Order: sequence, then C-alpha cells, then structure tokens
Amino acid sequence: MPAETLDQIVSLCKRRGFIFPGSDIYGGLQGTYDYGPLGVELKNNLKRLWWKHNVYERDDMEGIETALLTQKYVLRYSGHEREFVDLMVDCKTCRLRFREDKAQDAQCLKHPKKHPGECEGQLTEPRAFNLMFRTQVGPIADEESFAYLRPETAQGMFINFKNVLDSTNRKLPFGIAQQGKSFRNEITPRNFLFRVRELEQMEIEYFVYPDDAPRVHDEWITDHMEWWINEVGLDREKLQLFEHPQEKLSHYSARTVDILYKFPTLGFDELEGIANRTDWDLYSHSRDQDKIDASPNTKKNAVQNEHSTERLTYFDDETRKHIVPFVVEPAAGVDRGVLAALCEAYDEETLENGEVRTVLRLKPALAPVKVAVLPLKKNAPEIVEVAKRIKNTLQSSGQMRAVYDDSAAIGKLYRRQDEIGTPFCITVDFETIGKSRDGDESLQGTVTLRDRDTMQQIRLPIEELFTYISERIR
Amino acid sequence: MPAETLDQIVSLCKRRGFIFPGSDIYGGLQGTYDYGPLGVELKNNLKRLWWKHNVYERDDMEGIETALLTQKYVLRYSGHEREFVDLMVDCKTCRLRFREDKAQDAQCLKHPKKHPGECEGQLTEPRAFNLMFRTQVGPIADEESFAYLRPETAQGMFINFKNVLDSTNRKLPFGIAQQGKSFRNEITPRNFLFRVRELEQMEIEYFVYPDDAPRVHDEWITDHMEWWINEVGLDREKLQLFEHPQEKLSHYSARTVDILYKFPTLGFDELEGIANRTDWDLYSHSRDQDKIDASPNTKKNAVQNEHSTERLTYFDDETRKHIVPFVVEPAAGVDRGVLAALCEAYDEETLENGEVRTVLRLKPALAPVKVAVLPLKKNAPEIVEVAKRIKNTLQSSGQMRAVYDDSAAIGKLYRRQDEIGTPFCITVDFETIGKSRDGDESLQGTVTLRDRDTMQQIRLPIEELFTYISERIR
Repeated sequence: MPAETLDQIVSLCKRRGFIFPGSDIYGGLQGTYDYGPLGVELKNNLKRLWWKHNVYERDDMEGIETALLTQKYVLRYSGHEREFVDLMVDCKTCRLRFREDKAQDAQCLKHPKKHPGECEGQLTEPRAFNLMFRTQVGPIADEESFAYLRPETAQGMFINFKNVLDSTNRKLPFGIAQQGKSFRNEITPRNFLFRVRELEQMEIEYFVYPDDAPRVHDEWITDHMEWWINEVGLDREKLQLFEHPQEKLSHYSARTVDILYKFPTLGFDELEGIANRTDWDLYSHSRDQDKIDASPNTKKNAVQNEHSTERLTYFDDETRKHIVPFVVEPAAGVDRGVLAALCEAYDEETLENGEVRTVLRLKPALAPVKVAVLPLKKNAPEIVEVAKRIKNTLQSSGQMRAVYDDSAAIGKLYRRQDEIGTPFCITVDFETIGKSRDGDESLQGTVTLRDRDTMQQIRLPIEELFTYISERIR
Repeated sequence: MPAETLDQIVSLCKRRGFIFPGSDIYGGLQGTYDYGPLGVELKNNLKRLWWKHNVYERDDMEGIETALLTQKYVLRYSGHEREFVDLMVDCKTCRLRFREDKAQDAQCLKHPKKHPGECEGQLTEPRAFNLMFRTQVGPIADEESFAYLRPETAQGMFINFKNVLDSTNRKLPFGIAQQGKSFRNEITPRNFLFRVRELEQMEIEYFVYPDDAPRVHDEWITDHMEWWINEVGLDREKLQLFEHPQEKLSHYSARTVDILYKFPTLGFDELEGIANRTDWDLYSHSRDQDKIDASPNTKKNAVQNEHSTERLTYFDDETRKHIVPFVVEPAAGVDRGVLAALCEAYDEETLENGEVRTVLRLKPALAPVKVAVLPLKKNAPEIVEVAKRIKNTLQSSGQMRAVYDDSAAIGKLYRRQDEIGTPFCITVDFETIGKSRDGDESLQGTVTLRDRDTMQQIRLPIEELFTYISERIR
C-alpha cells in the first residue's frame, strides 16, 4: 500500500535519518531542513543521475556552479527587485506586517489586547514585499553595501554566458547546467520539503536561435518527463503537464509548462518548470542595449542597464551578425525530486504471516545503500571477519555503497534495510565459514543474498557477489 | 616549471573556465567566485574523493547536509555571537566603520572633504565586529526575526547529534561528516580562493570517550596528511604541520594543528585545521546543564543554555552513565583544496623543439575530463561517427567523463587537453576506418591513444580502450 498521507513520509524521514527539521533542538527555523545520513545519499544520487543525463551524456552542455551571494545589480536587471514580490499590508498601530491575502489571520487583529496600542483593523494600503533575502556585505554598514541570496540558480548562468563562451568556444545550440541552493523568503513555508525558504535547484539554460525556441521547448518537456519516469522511477500515471495561462506568466516567460507529480495529501503539484525565457535575461544584463536587437517584448519591458560591462550576445558565423539567443529553461527542485522519489517508493506490504513490512522500492541507482553485509552472529569472530572483508571489497570497487551492520538480529536487520530501500542484503553464516551444525561443508565460501522487493534468498559464492550485484544496480 | 606566482593560476582558471570572479559582469562581488565548466568538475571530484575516504571506506562515519540558514540560538550558544569577531572603530562624524588595525587607511580620514561633516580622526573606542552574515527571515520585520548564514558546517552536526544517534544506533567512537557552504564576512577578502566570504568546507566531527581524544586527534592528523599526499597528489615537501600556540586557541579548542600547504606567492598557509573541541559544543547546546558532567573549562566558560530542548549526551552501556563525548574535528577548505591541487599540478614544460606547453598533471581521479575523443578530420563523416560512438561508449560506462571535441586541428586539441589535465586523448583517423592513404588496412578498428604526461602515443583496438583507461584512472 502506498503512502496515503505526507505525514507517513515525514515520520519515516525523521525516524530513519533521511530528513530532520532545521535547527531542530531550538524549536526549528521555519522552512529549513537538514538532510540526515540517508537523505544526503539519496539527494546526491538524484543530483548525480541528473548531471549524468544532462551534462555527461550530451555533447552540448557545460556545467557550472556559481556563488550564492549575488551582487544587487544582477537581481535588479533580472527584474527580481521589481517582480519577485507578494503583496503585503501593515497594521497602522503596531506596525506588524502581513501577506495581504492572509491578513484576516493576523494576530494583532484577532488578539488586539496582546499588542500595544489599539489594533482594530487599520491596515495600510497593500504594497510589494520582496521575497529575496538580503544581507550586509563587508565591514562598512551603509545602504549600498548589501547583497542578495540568489532566488534562483539561473542568473548565475546568464551573467556567466560570456565567460563560458570565451572559455569553451561553444556554438549554438548549447546549454549551461547548474545545481545548488537558492533562497526565497516565503510568507508561509509549508508541506515539508515542498515549500521551503532554503531550497536546492537543478536548472539548465539552453541557448538557441530565436526561431528554434518553441520546438526546443517541446523537446525538453518530453526529455525531462521521460527522465522522471525512467531514471527516477516515477509512475507515468502520477505525472501531468500544466500549461501556464498566458496572463499569469512570469515577467520573463513566453511560455511555461510545469511537470506535476501527484504527492500524497497535496495532490498534483510542481516538480519542474520548463520555460521559454526568450532573450529577456541576456538582453537585460547587457550594456549598450540600444545597439542590440531583441524581441519587442524584451525591448519594451527591460530596464535600461547602466551597470553591466558586457554585451551578452553571440556572434553567428553564418550571418556575420551579433544576436541575442533565446533560452529554454528546464528548472527542477532537488528537494521536491527527493520527496517525489520517496513518495513513489514507499510501500507498506502485508506479508503472508499477516505482518506488515515497510519497504522503499527505490530505483537501485537512487538507494542510499546498495548492499548491506550482515553477520548472522556478531559474537563469532570468523563470521564477522568474513562479513567485514566482503563489505570492504564491494565498497572499494567504487561502484556501490556497502555497509556493515551487526547491531541487531538478522530479521530486524532485514526490515531496517527494507525500510531504507537497500536493494540487496548479504548474510554471512556458519555455512559460509564451513561450520554448519550438521557438518556439511558444501556451502563453505558462499553467502545468502536477499532481494529487497521479492524477499527471495539465494546462495552465491563470495567471488560472484560483485558481478551479480553490479549488474543489477545500474 | 611549476607556477611561480598565484597569478599564473588565476589566469589559467579564467581562460580555461575553471574559476571566474563572482558577479563578474557587474564589477564583481568581493570575496565570491563562480566555478566554471572545468572547475565544477574538479571541485566535485575532490569532494567525492574526500567523501569516499572519510564516509564510505570507514564503518564509523555518517554523512549529513544541514541548512545554511541557521537559527540565532545555535550561534549564540556555540559562542559565535560573542567570539567570532574582529575589532572595529567608527568615525564619530560620518559613522563609517573600519577594522581597527586598518584604520589608518580609512577613506574618511584620508579624504575628509569628500565626506559630510568634519572627519578629522575622531574615532570611537574599538568594539567587536561580528563576522557572521545575518538576514531577516519571514514577512514580519522586527529585531528578533533574523537568522545567520552559518560560519562553519560544524554546528549543523552538533545540533543533529541526537537525531543521528536516534536514527542510527551508533556507539562511540563514531563521526559525522559534512560538505557544504559557509559564510564569513571577511574585512579584507584576498588571495583568490584563499580568503573568501563564501566558502565551501568539508568537515568531520568525530565523537570519542574524553580520554581517547588526544590519541584520536593525532590519528586524524596523520590520516589526513596522508590523504592530501596520496589521493590529492600534493608533494610531501610542500606540506607542514603547524601547532597553534596555547594562548591563541579558539574558544572551543584544547589543541589545534593545521596542515599547511606551500602556495605560490602566499607561502605556507592553512589547508585544513584539526582541532580537539573537547565537550564544548555538545555541552553548550544542551539543556539541563546543571545535571550534566563536563570538563572544567567547558563548565566555566559556556553560557547557560535557556533555549535548547535536548540533552546532547551519550548513554554509555558499560558504565550505565550519560556522558558528554569529546569531539575531534578535521576541517578542510574545499576551495583551498582545489587551489592547492591546481598549484601542485601546474607545469610549464619546454619541449625538445623549444615550444612551451602548459600541462596540469592532476591525479586522474581529480581531472575534470578523463578522456577526450578527437576526430582527425571533422569533415569526414565516418571518422566523426566512430569518434562520437567511442565517446558515448566510454561515457555510458559511468566510470569516466569523456568529451568529444572537433573544434580545432589535432595539435591544438592536444594542447587544450594538456592544459586542463585530461589524462588521455584518443584520435580517430583514416586508418581507424580502413582508409589510410597507402591502402594498408591493418590498422582498421584501432585508434591512437596519447598520454598527457609522457605525450607518448600508442595504437589500440577500440574494444580495448575501456579496460586500458579505466585501469589507469583509478
């Protein structure tokens, strides 16, 4: 049985060490989470799969990783200073501030006596509240010396467009890919990893000739839809496309299509957004804009750039002209991807004997641990020694994460590994060391290998383990 | 010839796309850097080597990854609010603020006319300037609703001590490892990646019985010294240990030993610090401190904790007592590690013909690209097709990053790969496709494989490439 509520996932995550609330022992810091021992492996595996698919296996992609602290002009000319806002109101008496569409829940209005002055619903006109975090940079505290924590990884790629071109000699079409943290001062963080203030993204800015953008946009939608299904293991039935209505598009977008996943409790919600950002960003970050051609919407709405030192244009060898490429952006949430993978994998299975086991049916490539090596008896030095040697041999191959665990009886160790999604368990027993009770030595040098999903056990010679497992975790 | 100055490294990094200044096109944001296409691979390779050595290949380590936004109490009780400071003075007239030991360079004193009022050297008494970045969190702007950007990854591990214990059942000794960004509002960022405001760390908090701490401290110093030499490839002659004098130790440390590397221009400077943090942190973050035993120094100097919800103690099965473990912390800088690896690898070699080639003699495991596949002629479709197929086959093994490049003549392509440290180049030529000029078909199905360091070329059958290369890049 799959997870019926998000709470089941949250509970597993805390209990088994996937994800903890941020700053937990001090009551938490809303909208932040810490990845525990298993969570960090799952997250890194997801990121590696994405990087492999989008960077290594293509011939038209460069990866980068840019700073989180971002100079203010980057986010002024990107449009974020002006556009990345929610509407806010202040209580005229106590000066507290609320999101306009949540003002009826305001504490100072509901409980006026607890607040100084007379809070009786006197609110200011709505005004824009910017969702970007700011911080003072450098020793001199004045109005000008602040930077933003980036609200998306995307801008780091646009402002490095020239640096990447100059150092790689790329020709259109080509892309820049990045994974990393972004920050959004959400009014109401909620739904576990789903809406947080500190998030991780994996984004691509794929630069094309303007006429090619609509076709390439469709290609990326298809490619990434298939990636979520085939490589992350999400059920095609639980995925949907959502076309943003024209009138609700972000300021930079000509068209945006979201890939939605059906989360328990939340229903269908965004996993990845794929936008045609046109020539908005490269043009907006360019100097000498009056000398550059761009699309009418961009020309009309971009703020005149008085601070950039570069023209972010591309010299087309064929037409001998400088153009501003269009960009298609597949932008996925790492944390949402982790959450979707966990929700998809979660299964409570009722066994023949009536017991219920929780098993994470993660794709082996995503599983935090690929193989657990378990001694049948932890007080038998010979068994322990063989088990540890097997663990070390498998681990040193560099191709699978192996762990050794002797902290409980074997049945309990199996259940623990099921619950964290380990595809294989190896058990070293008395037969392995040629000391079975009935004196039969025929199984010496063999171990039990148990499959997570079927719970079937087979007996394998130790020297065949590596090949058997490595073929099945690809 | 190795790099004589840091500038040679900085120049290579920008030209070939390892590292760019942050927010570059807007004149930069001091103390921040962006990793380019090659830099991100080098950095990730270094991080993976470290994770493999310190997490996967041990049986006593858990990895985690905690949030960068950190609740204020975490850094109050850690001692950072009080201790993580430099001394600052303000100009009494114009209110500008300076680091005390740099006040003589202050602009308002040197150029008083440019500033309002009369700036004539009237400075306030020195006071503490905290190096932590702060940011307002949530929609309601008041004095209390701020968080810090973490100044070290360490605190994330201490405050999760209980979460990790509860989810893993670890027994002493065991460690928690973390990689990730930290932030320090340095007064004077300088020396390229060496002193920056946004940095990346790889840290371990290794928890032990108090009596074991001195011995374990020495073990980690030796282990990590050997890691930098054997796995990162640093020259033993360029590494030194530095023992911090007792009177200059950080507030939490009983003993700190740094591993120093001899950087060009800078000379010997810190790569990693290995500290015995005693029971300072776990005790400082605990509630009910009056009911907990700790070392005298910690008892005396820790601030009474009025906000923690947990006792960060460990129940010792043998003595049946709750104790506060000591912790040994090996804390290395990722960016400094990248810089050291680049400096060590950099070589300008004068060839027999008098030409100079720049070659990065990186350990293959660190090299951004393991193998480049080059077509001798990019207008010969058969050659291109074979070259791309070889690239794809090697890449899809998942064991080596392979790139295809046809953007220049072969000699130039070799030089480009030398300069970025690619251990092997494969060239597909007319012999490969059975169309040599002299009609000799004996080399059909073979390619040229060139070694970066020796520049020797050998001829190999295509099907032997994978084995040959994979054995040499381990």
